Amino acid sequence: MKNAELWFTEYQSDNLSIGLRINKTIHSEVTEFQTLDIMETEQYGNLLVLDGCVMTTDKDEFVYHEMISHVPLHTHPNPKRVLVIGGGDGGAIREIIKHPSVEKAVLAEIDGRVIETSKEYFPQIASGLADPRVDVQVTDGIQYVKDHKGEFDVILVDSTDPIGPAVGLFARDFYQLVFEALTDDGLFVAQTESPFANQKLISQVNADIKSVFPQTHMYLAFIPTYPTGMWSFTMGSKKYNPLQDQQPQRVTGTKYYSSDVHKGAFALPPFVQELIKG
Amino acid sequence: MKNAELWFTEYQSDNLSIGLRINKTIHSEVTEFQTLDIMETEQYGNLLVLDGCVMTTDKDEFVYHEMISHVPLHTHPNPKRVLVIGGGDGGAIREIIKHPSVEKAVLAEIDGRVIETSKEYFPQIASGLADPRVDVQVTDGIQYVKDHKGEFDVILVDSTDPIGPAVGLFARDFYQLVFEALTDDGLFVAQTESPFANQKLISQVNADIKSVFPQTHMYLAFIPTYPTGMWSFTMGSKKYNPLQDQQPQRVTGTKYYSSDVHKGAFALPPFVQELIKG
Amino acid sequence: MKNAELWFTEYQSDNLSIGLRINKTIHSEVTEFQTLDIMETEQYGNLLVLDGCVMTTDKDEFVYHEMISHVPLHTHPNPKRVLVIGGGDGGAIREIIKHPSVEKAVLAEIDGRVIETSKEYFPQIASGLADPRVDVQVTDGIQYVKDHKGEFDVILVDSTDPIGPAVGLFARDFYQLVFEALTDDGLFVAQTESPFANQKLISQVNADIKSVFPQTHMYLAFIPTYPTGMWSFTMGSKKYNPLQDQQPQRVTGTKYYSSDVHKGAFALPPFVQELIKG
Amino acid sequence: MKNAELWFTEYQSDNLSIGLRINKTIHSEVTEFQTLDIMETEQYGNLLVLDGCVMTTDKDEFVYHEMISHVPLHTHPNPKRVLVIGGGDGGAIREIIKHPSVEKAVLAEIDGRVIETSKEYFPQIASGLADPRVDVQVTDGIQYVKDHKGEFDVILVDSTDPIGPAVGLFARDFYQLVFEALTDDGLFVAQTESPFANQKLISQVNADIKSVFPQTHMYLAFIPTYPTGMWSFTMGSKKYNPLQDQQPQRVTGTKYYSSDVHKGAFALPPFVQELIKG
Repeated sequence: MKNAELWFTEYQSDNLSIGLRINKTIHSEVTEFQTLDIMETEQYGNLLVLDGCVMTTDKDEFVYHEMISHVPLHTHPNPKRVLVIGGGDGGAIREIIKHPSVEKAVLAEIDGRVIETSKEYFPQIASGLADPRVDVQVTDGIQYVKDHKGEFDVILVDSTDPIGPAVGLFARDFYQLVFEALTDDGLFVAQTESPFANQKLISQVNADIKSVFPQTHMYLAFIPTYPTGMWSFTMGSKKYNPLQDQQPQRVTGTKYYSSDVHKGAFALPPFVQELIKG
Repeated sequence: MKNAELWFTEYQSDNLSIGLRINKTIHSEVTEFQTLDIMETEQYGNLLVLDGCVMTTDKDEFVYHEMISHVPLHTHPNPKRVLVIGGGDGGAIREIIKHPSVEKAVLAEIDGRVIETSKEYFPQIASGLADPRVDVQVTDGIQYVKDHKGEFDVILVDSTDPIGPAVGLFARDFYQLVFEALTDDGLFVAQTESPFANQKLISQVNADIKSVFPQTHMYLAFIPTYPTGMWSFTMGSKKYNPLQDQQPQRVTGTKYYSSDVHKGAFALPPFVQELIKG
Repeated sequence: MKNAELWFTEYQSDNLSIGLRINKTIHSEVTEFQTLDIMETEQYGNLLVLDGCVMTTDKDEFVYHEMISHVPLHTHPNPKRVLVIGGGDGGAIREIIKHPSVEKAVLAEIDGRVIETSKEYFPQIASGLADPRVDVQVTDGIQYVKDHKGEFDVILVDSTDPIGPAVGLFARDFYQLVFEALTDDGLFVAQTESPFANQKLISQVNADIKSVFPQTHMYLAFIPTYPTGMWSFTMGSKKYNPLQDQQPQRVTGTKYYSSDVHKGAFALPPFVQELIKG
Repeated sequence: MKNAELWFTEYQSDNLSIGLRINKTIHSEVTEFQTLDIMETEQYGNLLVLDGCVMTTDKDEFVYHEMISHVPLHTHPNPKRVLVIGGGDGGAIREIIKHPSVEKAVLAEIDGRVIETSKEYFPQIASGLADPRVDVQVTDGIQYVKDHKGEFDVILVDSTDPIGPAVGLFARDFYQLVFEALTDDGLFVAQTESPFANQKLISQVNADIKSVFPQTHMYLAFIPTYPTGMWSFTMGSKKYNPLQDQQPQRVTGTKYYSSDVHKGAFALPPFVQELIKG
């Protein structure tokens, strides 16, 4: 097409959008829980969209998946059992099982269609799901943590934005359940949106996690396809501190994570500290 | 998708565009002659795009195909042999063969891929191509008229915009060849773009046809997916006048064409008359 | 700007949009009744937008204003008193006062800000408002017709789309009031949206006008900046028929209207006739 | 506007765009050097666009201006004379003069219109330009450094993207001139685009700076309105190392910069290190 174009636009807020030129649509469905769209972009390869929000792309998925996984797994000295809530694309699982100490990694994803379509259209992201240490559960993550008290060293909350099926994953009651599902020295990390765009949410989530966990720490990563490009993750920990207890790098071949990046990611600009000083 | 959208945009000029929400892409290729894209729109059903220009859609194709065909075929008293140059989607052919007098309808389309993809994705438009009276030729229309002197009662130039493969179809030399390919009382019609948007082209084309044919007549139709929605067709005729020689309506079931619409379509606003007064 | 663009997009439906490149914004306000935006487009000159709908542009306003005015005023043999409801830009008034028989033209526009900003930013459209025969009333058109029984030979309903302040102007009760405000041989015309895009509305409006007036006639015009480019007007008349009683053209210098265009505009395609066959 | 929208779109690449809803255009001109547009966005306040590239906005300008300034000025132990090349909006100057040691800050901006319009429409960014220590020169920065050998402790290259007037500021010859304009222990920082989007440029610029300066260091900041949101700055230094020689924070009230952020900004992800390992 010369005079014409096909673009995907995500309205990241009422007043801000990101546009990606689309080569073709690959898959679209309305699952039991959400809309699910997969398209081929020129800029970032295949694109996964849930309920109209960019979830991941072939070209930049490494940032999110390395940072949600390797920061907590290099904070805990010996993570054996790890739970991912959400994360049906399998990217977090792929990173988790690179850690030699991990004996079991459970994926509790509410929407089986995310898992199945990721296997088909994002095979390099979903690659870890076939590992024998991985237990894939198509189930409500909230119910799953209720039913598994004291079982996990590390829990990752790899959720969509706090609309639709993920609303319950941004609530104090849920953080309490996560606390109870962790072992005595366990810790968890949740993706917690953008400090430029989601300031109220970040303040609230931080306060909620603080009210449940002895330690709360926020860190940041550059994710080009997420609103504003600045993305936050929040760790709640019973015992270990991500800087004082940082472990030497155990996995090789990372493209975003490194021991230095681990440290640097916790250096929050004052305007971000302000949001969570509560 | 809730927060996100997929839209096709045609830039009809540097400063004007039309946007159509896309459900999915259906087919894309670069043929020997042009880019060819088929998408499913929410507003108009399937959409055919050649070189970035909207060619036709399921929902509004009837206007173009009825008006390019039935006006000349209701001007000629007894059209037996009809040629369509371009028109690979088959829509003009479908209308032509509704005329009982037609013994042979030739489609001379340069790009066989347009024919094949239309058969697959626009079966209701391409439906007439299977008729035994129809002769589909994948060939250069200019060469075809050169090789068939004095053979046709009516010729339709159902071309793309005057860029790419269709440039030669908007030229005086071509109109001369069309003249020679017609019988002694033959007539032809070409789609000749929008009087709001393509004023120079219309003036030039009109002057060129006038210099070849004894009679030149312009008429108009409402086509929502074409730039400005106002589309012109120009008739060059050796003998018959579309108003004085208008035939009673011979085909039934038309959605746009009627004897009254035939007459009314030649009532040109003064600003359009100005373009062609030359 | 090289890599960047500023575009105005009107979503004409959920699935269809028109885009216009903007040179600059000129004026924006929220009046007592609606949002009002004026911008300079590259394609069509200045653009007036009310409640997010394109109302008029410098370059194509002539079509709408000539066709809403000259068709009824060339149907009535001797229009002396004319009322415009809405039409605060003044374009209809400008055309009305070209008719020598007109002694008084009243503009009943509910939103005085439309009148004032049109005078400032569309002086060539608003030019007629200063004529001594013109009486500008900033008032509710519905109340105005209630208060002026039997006074007008011709009434034009030059309204916005049937949302916001114009909702009441697309209702049977209003057509009854218009009937009563007309003289015994009076007639009225309303703009009645696009036969491609607003089919239910057209059917309803036509039925409503038919239930009040002895004669109902629809006609069409090409308006590039309105959805689909095909626009309808509906006439309700007590006595005169727009074809049988058509008057010779009384005004000169028109760019769209002519006696032939007058006739041709009533030639409705069968799919449009179907909408109003009721 | 309800059904319509006005958006500014920057095509950050052929396949990637950012969109900002526009309340109104404020100023547009073609200066001697570039196009210059100022608009009011809903998301980020006033927006400055040069040659179609977002330069700065009211709401996120603090990141860029603090990071281009305070990192080098907290690396040099006693910066007295500072030069900004480009930076006509004045934001870098505003930050520079917060350092008590600074005796003179020169702004060498080639386009005086950037300075003048910033004073008018971004008064809080341009505020420092009135300080008595500031010397504003409307001049070619390349010529300026040629003419001022050995004069500056710190030089900031606060340029537009490497198209148009800024092309010469991304060249080895220029870095050599910058080297010569610095004092014996001087250092400079240039904005050096996005590691996600401009990988070749970053590799080249890094190699060029390395070939001139004993030390080269890259650091990163989150800038939501720049392509991908990940922005790089590159320091070339004759003597001081930004980590080993980091000075205690001398300025208060920063929103992005802190001593921790200073350190963390140099923690480059492996994929970024790869670009500059040369």
